[in-house]
Amino acid sequence: MTGVFFEIKYRSRHSLARVGRLLTRHGPVDTPVFMLVGTQGAVKSVSKEDLEDAGVQILLANTYHLYLRPGHEVIKRLGGLHKFMNWPHSILTDSGGFQVYSLAKLREVTEEGVVFQSHLDGSRHFIGPDEAMTIQMALGSDIMMALDECVPYPCEYAYVRRSVDLTTSWAKRCAAYRGRGRGAVFGIVQGGMYPDLRQRSAEALIQMDFDGYAIGGLSVGEDRETRAEMIKVVRELLPDHKPVYLMGVGTPEDLVEAVFLGVDMFDCVMPTRNARNGTLFTRKGKISIKNARYVDDDRPVDEDCDCYTCRNYSRAYLRHLFMAKELLVYRLNTIHNITFYMDLMEDIRQAIREERLDSFRKKFYENQDRGENASGGTYEAGLEANL
Amino acid sequence: MTGVFFEIKYRSRHSLARVGRLLTRHGPVDTPVFMLVGTQGAVKSVSKEDLEDAGVQILLANTYHLYLRPGHEVIKRLGGLHKFMNWPHSILTDSGGFQVYSLAKLREVTEEGVVFQSHLDGSRHFIGPDEAMTIQMALGSDIMMALDECVPYPCEYAYVRRSVDLTTSWAKRCAAYRGRGRGAVFGIVQGGMYPDLRQRSAEALIQMDFDGYAIGGLSVGEDRETRAEMIKVVRELLPDHKPVYLMGVGTPEDLVEAVFLGVDMFDCVMPTRNARNGTLFTRKGKISIKNARYVDDDRPVDEDCDCYTCRNYSRAYLRHLFMAKELLVYRLNTIHNITFYMDLMEDIRQAIREERLDSFRKKFYENQDRGENASGGTYEAGLEANL
Repeated sequence: MTGVFFEIKYRSRHSLARVGRLLTRHGPVDTPVFMLVGTQGAVKSVSKEDLEDAGVQILLANTYHLYLRPGHEVIKRLGGLHKFMNWPHSILTDSGGFQVYSLAKLREVTEEGVVFQSHLDGSRHFIGPDEAMTIQMALGSDIMMALDECVPYPCEYAYVRRSVDLTTSWAKRCAAYRGRGRGAVFGIVQGGMYPDLRQRSAEALIQMDFDGYAIGGLSVGEDRETRAEMIKVVRELLPDHKPVYLMGVGTPEDLVEAVFLGVDMFDCVMPTRNARNGTLFTRKGKISIKNARYVDDDRPVDEDCDCYTCRNYSRAYLRHLFMAKELLVYRLNTIHNITFYMDLMEDIRQAIREERLDSFRKKFYENQDRGENASGGTYEAGLEANL
Repeated sequence: MTGVFFEIKYRSRHSLARVGRLLTRHGPVDTPVFMLVGTQGAVKSVSKEDLEDAGVQILLANTYHLYLRPGHEVIKRLGGLHKFMNWPHSILTDSGGFQVYSLAKLREVTEEGVVFQSHLDGSRHFIGPDEAMTIQMALGSDIMMALDECVPYPCEYAYVRRSVDLTTSWAKRCAAYRGRGRGAVFGIVQGGMYPDLRQRSAEALIQMDFDGYAIGGLSVGEDRETRAEMIKVVRELLPDHKPVYLMGVGTPEDLVEAVFLGVDMFDCVMPTRNARNGTLFTRKGKISIKNARYVDDDRPVDEDCDCYTCRNYSRAYLRHLFMAKELLVYRLNTIHNITFYMDLMEDIRQAIREERLDSFRKKFYENQDRGENASGGTYEAGLEANL
């Protein structure tokens, strides 16, 4: 099997929402799916079993990080990323582009690609579209992303237009790798916050017949309305039988909203990074475990959650561990947050299948206001960089 | 049930080594036993299941740390330390004394106890023998340690002599708590490196009929011969039917040697702290996982180890995670090292029962020299403070 097989199981009659199944050579992925980020070949603090217990079917790994350390050639010699990290399920790799722009130093972007300095040791490197695909093939990725240029926000029209054309020309080279490895190749629509450039980008990529399409360059500081507009403009053009992936998004609210617009795939560091910062998601909004009110609270984080953490540990214990900077807490918090995200996506899929996504959304927002943070608002915008 | 029940199952015909079973109200503990340190109510980075899988039956928790944070009253309200930290097996707590001397600031030692400043926030506290026992009872400890004074090394005779008498007078107060809680109470023999003071301390404590006896104030920088001499002087005097606990020891070599001298219990941060520093124990000596030679080594840490880490991950992956400071590596390394220590103790118990402890020791040292560190010596002295 090469590429991916995408089957749509159910289409909502009231919105673009749909339930599907993505099949890679490492197994099925139920969509809409939220992909956890395993930046350097590990989802920070948790094991394979922790991920499986939460229902995780696919991880995102960062090409830039693995290229620099330990190096894609090392991973290839060791049998590929799946074997290296002991993850027998699906893996999507990004192109490395986003981290080159957000982490690396002294970047120089040309028609050929990007010259940059490693954030680790300052060494000089070049990644062009061919290199991006070669690295991802060496890793043995199930879904490879085309190299794109990520523009800053805000950004002038003329610059974004040139950038879209560069991304298009790189995408052409990347599309040529479809079928050369065993992984699928997705194109990435750019275009900043300019509807006509989003359209220009999408139309060009569609000609290249990718296995799936990503919407990149969002969740960079724009307001929710603009983001929704950009998603709609692009989504309308994309072939309906292919998976649509909204990159770097987002909060639970973001996911609920984007599913209505016909998005099938998401990724974000929010559940894992928040866990390490002591912010835990619950069905009644999020809580900060370091709050003094939890000092002798013997309840679980979320009384409706069945994760390992909620079954075995109290808020009081988690607070104690967090205040004491005990390593165990990062794993316990992460297990809870990833379970929350996986449960949310399962609830969304079920709501779509049962034609009650509208009432699900209504109840979701109501519940957010019923928790301990009722006065403190719910989720902040999903502006975190995808590191 | 109050206190502990200690049964000696087998006595070596060739040395003081013996195999026993300590029964607390939280279950059996096979001796000789190495106790892992769960300083702040958690063994750093690992879960209850990780510990159980390695065969752990008892943990040591630090009274000083838990008294300061979250506070023994909080833990008592939440049902005790076992419930708080989700550890249904045995727990031994130290008296807090060692950390007061090694961590706290502005100590003032009087007949009544120790005034000290918290290393966390500088707040002033007092712990005397009654306070030490009250705190340990609030925690719900299975084995409580009497408060002692730990003298520096080296230390003048006159000071140590006065200190032994202080420890003796505190021990008297602590012994009065036998039967008042449900935990056992152990006395701690001090006396620096002076055989007659060790004798003086031991004889006084024996009069108080503790549930068990610890040898404290060793592994503080003395040479191995001196340490062995101190153990022998004390061990000879102690009642043979009670458990003997050598505090803060040690390396695998230390354990093998002390078992010959009739020691039943040990504790040390070595396996867990070394794990976090990337030093892993193997049957062929220890290795430093950050060594470049492991960059594409697809073997497990120890080919004769059956732990979760060795069954699932390569040295190359552990090295990568360690270099990338990925949180997962602390747990994976710790699981391996604690399994190594638990396996070592099980091997020792079996060797005693089968009257082949001598040949076990011989083979143990031979194997140490056959590994990758053959030229680099084996274990360094177990000088690490018990933090």
